[in-house]
Amino acid sequence: MNNPNKKRVFKKKKQDDIQIESLAEKILAGERGSLSKGITLIESNAIHHRQKANELVQSLLPHTGNSIRVGITGVPGAGKSTWIESFGKTAVKKSYKIAVLAVDPSSSLSGGSILGDKTRMEFLAHHPDVFIRPSPSSGTLGGVARMTRETILLCEAAGYDLILVETVGVGQSEGIVRGMTDFFLLLSLTGAGDELQGMKKGIMELVDAIVINKADGTNKDQAIQTMHDYNQILRFLSPATKGWKPRAHTCSALYNEGIEELFEIIHQFIHETKETGEFRERRSRQAVDWMSQLVQIRLNESFFNQEKKNLMKKLESKVKQNELSPSEAVDVLFNKD
Amino acid sequence: MNNPNKKRVFKKKKQDDIQIESLAEKILAGERGSLSKGITLIESNAIHHRQKANELVQSLLPHTGNSIRVGITGVPGAGKSTWIESFGKTAVKKSYKIAVLAVDPSSSLSGGSILGDKTRMEFLAHHPDVFIRPSPSSGTLGGVARMTRETILLCEAAGYDLILVETVGVGQSEGIVRGMTDFFLLLSLTGAGDELQGMKKGIMELVDAIVINKADGTNKDQAIQTMHDYNQILRFLSPATKGWKPRAHTCSALYNEGIEELFEIIHQFIHETKETGEFRERRSRQAVDWMSQLVQIRLNESFFNQEKKNLMKKLESKVKQNELSPSEAVDVLFNKD
Repeated sequence: MNNPNKKRVFKKKKQDDIQIESLAEKILAGERGSLSKGITLIESNAIHHRQKANELVQSLLPHTGNSIRVGITGVPGAGKSTWIESFGKTAVKKSYKIAVLAVDPSSSLSGGSILGDKTRMEFLAHHPDVFIRPSPSSGTLGGVARMTRETILLCEAAGYDLILVETVGVGQSEGIVRGMTDFFLLLSLTGAGDELQGMKKGIMELVDAIVINKADGTNKDQAIQTMHDYNQILRFLSPATKGWKPRAHTCSALYNEGIEELFEIIHQFIHETKETGEFRERRSRQAVDWMSQLVQIRLNESFFNQEKKNLMKKLESKVKQNELSPSEAVDVLFNKD
Repeated sequence: MNNPNKKRVFKKKKQDDIQIESLAEKILAGERGSLSKGITLIESNAIHHRQKANELVQSLLPHTGNSIRVGITGVPGAGKSTWIESFGKTAVKKSYKIAVLAVDPSSSLSGGSILGDKTRMEFLAHHPDVFIRPSPSSGTLGGVARMTRETILLCEAAGYDLILVETVGVGQSEGIVRGMTDFFLLLSLTGAGDELQGMKKGIMELVDAIVINKADGTNKDQAIQTMHDYNQILRFLSPATKGWKPRAHTCSALYNEGIEELFEIIHQFIHETKETGEFRERRSRQAVDWMSQLVQIRLNESFFNQEKKNLMKKLESKVKQNELSPSEAVDVLFNKD
């Protein structure tokens, strides 16, 4: 304990010794500690850990897929944590085992995470049937997406059958979460127009449902008006899921109103998309897309060493100044091997 | 003439002998034949032509950028050609030199092009101040995008100061055309809702204006209603261009109504965005994005030889069957070097 370096070496050795087979067995048995350990392995950036992690995911693969994967997005302040607490409570009563994950583009910069503050999920945080894991706090958005996708698989192997993936509706993160979930939900507040202005373009065309939260007290009438506004827009847009008409709904997480109804909607969605085959179709598509993205990440990682990165920056600024055509710049980049 | 092979060899030699410096001079002098020759060089897939093409673009670069680049999209039947004919006539009267280009995802498959049929642009097709070039008829969508972008630069160097780029509103082509133009226009017909259902997601959030065409005769009232419907939706969406509120308008290309008004709108748009700096900003962003896309195309071209392509297909089908995790599949793909 007096020599921190020694401790680190010891830890590293322990990690390397991981027996994937026995870890997989313990995860399948539902051991929370082993699940956490597996996820930590997935989140490691060391190359030898990556190989181990791939082995682990591969060996658990036959035991994955048996869950409902729900993505939840909304601007900060839309009440995501409170809503998940309320929704999760209902799910636990229905005997679901719930995993709550997050893809948080800010956490990789700030080190903080939207799920870091568990005080808003006090019930879920202490319930034996609930597993909460904050967003990986390092890596690119593509890397975080890979980690979260593999974490979903591990949680499923551990017996969690309702996976909630939370994200803030800015940048590209909603598209990434949409790409790893079956049902995608936008949590909103009253005043649809104002709120949408600040959101990522095209978000309305990603959602399977919109929930206007905090529809209680003096806010209720306005929430109903906002619901109508959203339904008006949704009417004109192509649906995110073939054959499913997305609708807006009101809800009060605080008073537990509208939560049960949303559960019914999700059940109906899963039932219908399984009937039409769209459920399986989407999961196949998602897995293949994910593979394509991994290929692109790998290609870029192997090409862009520090020297290439620096050169790219210099070339970009010349292109911006119109001194160099993009084609010519790329020629320079590739000839500098 | 009796020996087609001989002719081809002769042609090839001629092409290779191209003196870039003199070609560039002729293009700058506004010689149409040389402009066509330059574009043909850009559209060639031979590697030694690519180098020449890069040289050409690079040498003309200081003389590019002085045009208004307008993208036009709409489903087949929305009347794009008739509208361009009408809009182009007005532009010619205002002393513009016009280039009409196209990005046509179908032409690379079918060999046909949306601009192939010049009969609908009879006035423009024969006017000395107008240059019409159909979509490149071979290559991937990314390749076609590169060619069209470089063709824009060549046309600008040749003195064309209004560039119209037409595309069919399906697939990814509108996003690509949005990415190479200053002002982006959606041509639509009456019945906004029905029409939008068939269009690419997110298109409403790419546009700077919507024009409901064929607003004449018995169709006029319905066109005005459609205009209101579109404006209703646009109100809720984030604008494609910072500081610019996109609106819907009616127009009759047949009776030449609403064309002059749209000209005013585009002028106002260019004026305002130049004032705020957004015009230059967007062009810089577009050039840098294009460079990034070229890098990705190059990386993929150099990695995916035939063997890798075949392996990728096999792995994809295993991933679809859930036999292989995406991460494991990518490992296999990259270890097979």
